Amino acid sequence: MDIAELADRIRAGERRALARAITLVESGRDDHRARAVALLDRLAGSGRQALRIGLSGTPGVGKSTFIESFGMMLTGQGLRVAVLAVDPSSARSGGSILGDKTRMERLTREPNAFIRPSPSQTALGGVARRTRDAVALCEAAGFDIVLIETVGVGQSETMVAEMADLFILLLAPAGGDELQGVKRGIMEMADIILVNKADGDLKPAAMRTCADYAGALRLLRKRPQDPEGFPKAMTVSALEEEGLQNAWGEMQALAAWRRENGHFDARRAEQARHWFGEEVRLGLLARLEKDPDARAQMDRLGAAVARGEISVSGAATQMLAALNG
Amino acid sequence: MDIAELADRIRAGERRALARAITLVESGRDDHRARAVALLDRLAGSGRQALRIGLSGTPGVGKSTFIESFGMMLTGQGLRVAVLAVDPSSARSGGSILGDKTRMERLTREPNAFIRPSPSQTALGGVARRTRDAVALCEAAGFDIVLIETVGVGQSETMVAEMADLFILLLAPAGGDELQGVKRGIMEMADIILVNKADGDLKPAAMRTCADYAGALRLLRKRPQDPEGFPKAMTVSALEEEGLQNAWGEMQALAAWRRENGHFDARRAEQARHWFGEEVRLGLLARLEKDPDARAQMDRLGAAVARGEISVSGAATQMLAALNG
Repeated sequence: MDIAELADRIRAGERRALARAITLVESGRDDHRARAVALLDRLAGSGRQALRIGLSGTPGVGKSTFIESFGMMLTGQGLRVAVLAVDPSSARSGGSILGDKTRMERLTREPNAFIRPSPSQTALGGVARRTRDAVALCEAAGFDIVLIETVGVGQSETMVAEMADLFILLLAPAGGDELQGVKRGIMEMADIILVNKADGDLKPAAMRTCADYAGALRLLRKRPQDPEGFPKAMTVSALEEEGLQNAWGEMQALAAWRRENGHFDARRAEQARHWFGEEVRLGLLARLEKDPDARAQMDRLGAAVARGEISVSGAATQMLAALNG
Repeated sequence: MDIAELADRIRAGERRALARAITLVESGRDDHRARAVALLDRLAGSGRQALRIGLSGTPGVGKSTFIESFGMMLTGQGLRVAVLAVDPSSARSGGSILGDKTRMERLTREPNAFIRPSPSQTALGGVARRTRDAVALCEAAGFDIVLIETVGVGQSETMVAEMADLFILLLAPAGGDELQGVKRGIMEMADIILVNKADGDLKPAAMRTCADYAGALRLLRKRPQDPEGFPKAMTVSALEEEGLQNAWGEMQALAAWRRENGHFDARRAEQARHWFGEEVRLGLLARLEKDPDARAQMDRLGAAVARGEISVSGAATQMLAALNG
């Protein structure tokens, strides 16, 4: 299939074309990459814009159940929902989180939902690019909501926050010492904290945890992109499907406020610039790896440095001068 | 003073020349950098080699007291000791850890010791290069031991471990739940764990903590560079100057074993290659920032990406093609 036809089918919302295009942007092959870039440029400026929701939650907080319940609620309202998983840890084991997909049985069968597990990738840079490209493809395919979920390994939460319009942190009720378990810096990125499992025996603990986080959020410095009352903490029960409409209402209210006050578009523009800069930097470094002359000289100078014949700084200066010429 | 004279004075072990040279390698100015590289290349291949000891300890473990006691013991044995501080956190506040220096009163006055606090720097990349260059200068100046100490903020421990022959982790006695407080990945880098404050009321806790870490170290996979019994945990009291000779004996034994078995030189060669690669990568990225044409094009494409007229990947492809020409 040529790129023009693939683009048309994606715009028509064909799921198989979308899946195929995501496979294309995931490929590390140079010829695939060139086709992927051609496709993305053809789809750019389509004017279609999904609400991009970043969702972070460590294993055990009930993330799959939440996505299933939340996604089914949204599709029940006539919305089209794409779910993209970001899991850098699966990169190391070489597997993808298919387990999650099979745990989202209803959503997987829902015609208005599209679920794409994390591919096996080697570097966070690759995961970031793939996810960003996949988000663009889902938007072009006319999805209303793109949910980008991560388990929060390493820098993946920051990465997801930097490509989302809203960032949601999903937590489980905690024991005696609250507020532990959230990585430093993550709370500062959250727009809404959802304490899941507010059901059965855990409900009192969930409400206490929620109150604790609400208190902690009030201690954070106000960001310009936050209306009164945000960031906020709320309880939900994905299992009993409670609090989900409430949470969705808050997400919509926040997004609407940010659109009205210019923060929504400003953030998207800033993110686009950020990722463009990242991609140029990664490309520059990749070139060093690919050029056989540059590699040979790196090896030669590296050996001289290792033998102590030349200083690290002196060798780097020589190498950079050679790359300049 | 010209570079040749500065190099001669450093080789003669003149402390003021050394201090001046470190100020030179710390400078961000291009002309200073060129002089610094000339100086480092002139001093390369001097054949002088110090034992580089990386030392990490968070505030409160008694690091200054340890460095003072340990340094005084070494100089008392006729050894020349240089202490370089790495504190990326001081970069943000703009200050340097002079506080530590004033707390090392005896060592500061000791003629065979040289203490250099952390400069204010902006990026870890800059701190790494400055520290690496300063280590090379101290070696050329004939120091027997270069102690590179860090408070362990962010990636600074990994950085220090990657420029040290031995990596020592200094800890304080812990309370009930042992083994907490050590960042993940740090234990894997340690060659020797020293539990400080094994004196007075804290002595029993120090011994328990030491036993706990010794047990944890035994659970780690054996590394090729470890002789039987390493990595190991020991107690010391910097305050009462106890256990220091014992710890030094173990460091010497470990260094001797690694020298005999080729690991010492292999590690240095590997580190030199690593830092050379890092410096070339940083230099490539810095060039992008400095070239006005490249910056103008980055701005133009970045704005188009921000407006959604072109995909991130498409813009990056264009930019990289332009940088290639």
